[in-house]
Amino acid sequence: MNKTRLEAFSDGVLAIIITIMVLELKIPHGAYLEDLRPLLPIFLSYVLSFIYIGIYWNNHHHLLQATRQINGKILWANLHLLFWLSLVPFATGWMGENHFASLPTALYGVVLLCAAIAYTLLQHLIIKHHGSDYILAAAVGRDWKGKISLVFYVAAIPLAFVNQWISDAFYITVAAIWLIPDRRIESRISE
Amino acid sequence: MNKTRLEAFSDGVLAIIITIMVLELKIPHGAYLEDLRPLLPIFLSYVLSFIYIGIYWNNHHHLLQATRQINGKILWANLHLLFWLSLVPFATGWMGENHFASLPTALYGVVLLCAAIAYTLLQHLIIKHHGSDYILAAAVGRDWKGKISLVFYVAAIPLAFVNQWISDAFYITVAAIWLIPDRRIESRISE
Amino acid sequence: MNKTRLEAFSDGVLAIIITIMVLELKIPHGAYLEDLRPLLPIFLSYVLSFIYIGIYWNNHHHLLQATRQINGKILWANLHLLFWLSLVPFATGWMGENHFASLPTALYGVVLLCAAIAYTLLQHLIIKHHGSDYILAAAVGRDWKGKISLVFYVAAIPLAFVNQWISDAFYITVAAIWLIPDRRIESRISE
Amino acid sequence: MNKTRLEAFSDGVLAIIITIMVLELKIPHGAYLEDLRPLLPIFLSYVLSFIYIGIYWNNHHHLLQATRQINGKILWANLHLLFWLSLVPFATGWMGENHFASLPTALYGVVLLCAAIAYTLLQHLIIKHHGSDYILAAAVGRDWKGKISLVFYVAAIPLAFVNQWISDAFYITVAAIWLIPDRRIESRISE
Repeated sequence: MNKTRLEAFSDGVLAIIITIMVLELKIPHGAYLEDLRPLLPIFLSYVLSFIYIGIYWNNHHHLLQATRQINGKILWANLHLLFWLSLVPFATGWMGENHFASLPTALYGVVLLCAAIAYTLLQHLIIKHHGSDYILAAAVGRDWKGKISLVFYVAAIPLAFVNQWISDAFYITVAAIWLIPDRRIESRISE
Repeated sequence: MNKTRLEAFSDGVLAIIITIMVLELKIPHGAYLEDLRPLLPIFLSYVLSFIYIGIYWNNHHHLLQATRQINGKILWANLHLLFWLSLVPFATGWMGENHFASLPTALYGVVLLCAAIAYTLLQHLIIKHHGSDYILAAAVGRDWKGKISLVFYVAAIPLAFVNQWISDAFYITVAAIWLIPDRRIESRISE
Repeated sequence: MNKTRLEAFSDGVLAIIITIMVLELKIPHGAYLEDLRPLLPIFLSYVLSFIYIGIYWNNHHHLLQATRQINGKILWANLHLLFWLSLVPFATGWMGENHFASLPTALYGVVLLCAAIAYTLLQHLIIKHHGSDYILAAAVGRDWKGKISLVFYVAAIPLAFVNQWISDAFYITVAAIWLIPDRRIESRISE
Repeated sequence: MNKTRLEAFSDGVLAIIITIMVLELKIPHGAYLEDLRPLLPIFLSYVLSFIYIGIYWNNHHHLLQATRQINGKILWANLHLLFWLSLVPFATGWMGENHFASLPTALYGVVLLCAAIAYTLLQHLIIKHHGSDYILAAAVGRDWKGKISLVFYVAAIPLAFVNQWISDAFYITVAAIWLIPDRRIESRISE
C-alpha cells in the first residue's frame, strides 16, 4: 500500500485546520485601533496554534519521508492524530476568547497531550511495521523531545488551575523545543 | 484516463468535509465546565461522523488503489458519492444540536444510506470497467459488510421514530464493522 | 513548465468551492419537518451548483489531461476561471435564500456566463500554445456544447426578469447537456 | 528532502485562503440591487486580494519549479510566508467592511509588507541552499520587482493616514507589476 494518498489527505486536513483558525479572528465593525484590541488574545493564541500545527506538519513530513510502506493500522493511527489536531481550532478559539482563563488553557493542554500521544502511537506503528533495524528507529532513538513534551503537557494541565501563565509558558517552551526541525532523521538519511 | 486527479479531488473534498464539521462546535462565551456541557451531543455526533468519513476515505483509498483506469461514468459516480458525503456535516450538526431527536437521527441514516448506495454503485462501475476476472471483483467478493450496512441503515431510519437510541446503536455498530480496514483487498494485492 | 501544481491548486479550490456551498444550509434550531422546509430552495440551488462545479471539474480534468505543457498566460487564465467559480457559492446562496427571485436568478446566470467565457479563453490559450494540429484542437472541434451554453446563459439573464423559471429551466438544460462527459476528447485520446 | 509535500501543503493553504475570502461576501437578505450595493467595497477588496494571492501562488510555483531540494529552514520559511498570507482574508475583510478607511488600509499594507519580506527570505534561503551559481540566482538577478514592491508597501502604510486612496493606488500598482508572470526564471529554464 503506498503512502501518497495518506500524505495528500493529511496535507489537506492540516492545511484546512491551520487556515480555519484564522476565521476566529472575527472582523470588527469599527475601523479604529481600539476595535482591534479585543482581538489581541485571539491573535496570540492563533500564532501559538499556527506554530503547533506547523510543527506537526513538519514532523509528519519527516516521519512519512522515512516511511517506505503503510498498512491499515497506520492509516487509522494517522486519522486518530488528525482527529485530535482537528480540535485545535476549537481549543485555540476558546482559550483566546476567554483571555487564557484556567479551564480553556487546561483544555488546550489536553488536546495537545492527546495529539502528542496519537503522534507517538503513529510513530511506533510505523517503526514496528518496518522492523527495528530500520533507519527511523535509529534516528528517533530515545525521542527525548517527544518525552519532554508529554511531561510538559501533563504538568501544564493541572497547573492551569494554579496559574494559567505557567501553563502557557510550558506550551511556548514545547513549541520552541520543536521549532528546530528534526535533524535526527534528516541527518541519518543524508548519511 | 488516469486516476490521480480523481484521488486528489476526492481527498480534498473529504478533508474539507471532515474538518468543517468541527466548525459546528461553536466556541462558548463562558470559560467554565457548564459552558462546555451543551456541546457534548454535538461533540459525540462529530466523533461518529469523523469515524464515518474516515471509513469512507479508507475504503475509497483501498478501492482506487486497486483501480487501474477510470472513465467518465466513474468520475460522475465518484462525484455522486461526494455529494452525499457533503451532506454529512449538515446531518451531523442537526442531529447533535437537537440532542439526537427522532427526525434528525432518521435523516442522518438517510444520508448514510444514500452514501452507501453511491459507494456500492461506484464500486460496481469500477469492477465492470475492469472486467470480472479483475482482482477487485475477487477481493470484494460477496461484500457482506456493504450489504449488512445497507440493511442496518434501512432498519435504523424508521426505528428512529420508535426509539432513536436504537438507530444510534445501529450507526455505531456499522462504524465498528468497518473500522477494521478492508483486509480483503489488501491481502489479495499482497498475494 | 509542468502542469502538476496547476491541477493540484485547481483541485483544491474546486474542492473547497463545492464544499463551502453546503455551509449555506444553516442548521435549523427545531427538529421537525417544518424546520427543514425553508431550506428546500437552498438545497435545490445547492444541488444545481454542485452539478455545475462537478461539470467544470470534469471538463477541466479532460482539458488538462490533453495538455502537455503550460505557460504564464495559461496559469492566469486558469486563475481567472477559478475567480468566477469562486463566486458560485455566493450566487447560489443568494438565489436559494430568495426563493429564486428575478435578480438573484439573473446574477447566477451572469456568474455562469463569465465562468463559461473564462473556460473558453483557457481552452483557446491551451490550444494556441500547443499548435492547431494538436489533438485537443481536433477533439474540441467546433465546440457546439460551449457555444450553446453561452447562448443559453445570455438568453437566461434578461429572461429572469420576465419569468425566472424560464431561466432556471435554461440552467438545468445546460447542466444536462454537459452532464454527459466530454467523449470528444476521451475518444480521440484512446484512438 | 523532496519538495512535493511542501508544494502540496502550500497549494492547499493558498487554495483555502483564496476561497474563504469569498465567505466575507455575506449573502444579503433582500433580493434587490440596493441589497448588493453595501457589498461593493467588500467585493472590490476581494478582487484585489484574489489577484495578490494569485500572484503569490504564481511566483511560489515559479520559485519551487526551479528548486531541486529543500531543508528544514526552507520548510519554516515557507510556513512563515503562509502565516502572513493567512492574515490576508482578515485584512481584506476589515478594509472592505470599513470602506477602505485609513487604519484598515494601512494594516492591509502591513500584511502585504510582511508577506513580501517572508517571500524574499524564502527566496534567499532557497538560493543559498543551492549555491550562487544556481540558475535561480541568475534568474532572480537584482530582483527589481521585489524591491519596488517593498518600497511601495513601506510608502503606502503611512500614506493611508494622509489619503487612503493613494495607498490603494500603490497596492493596485504593485499588483499590476507582478501580474506579468515572472519571465526571468521561465526564460532561463527554457534556454
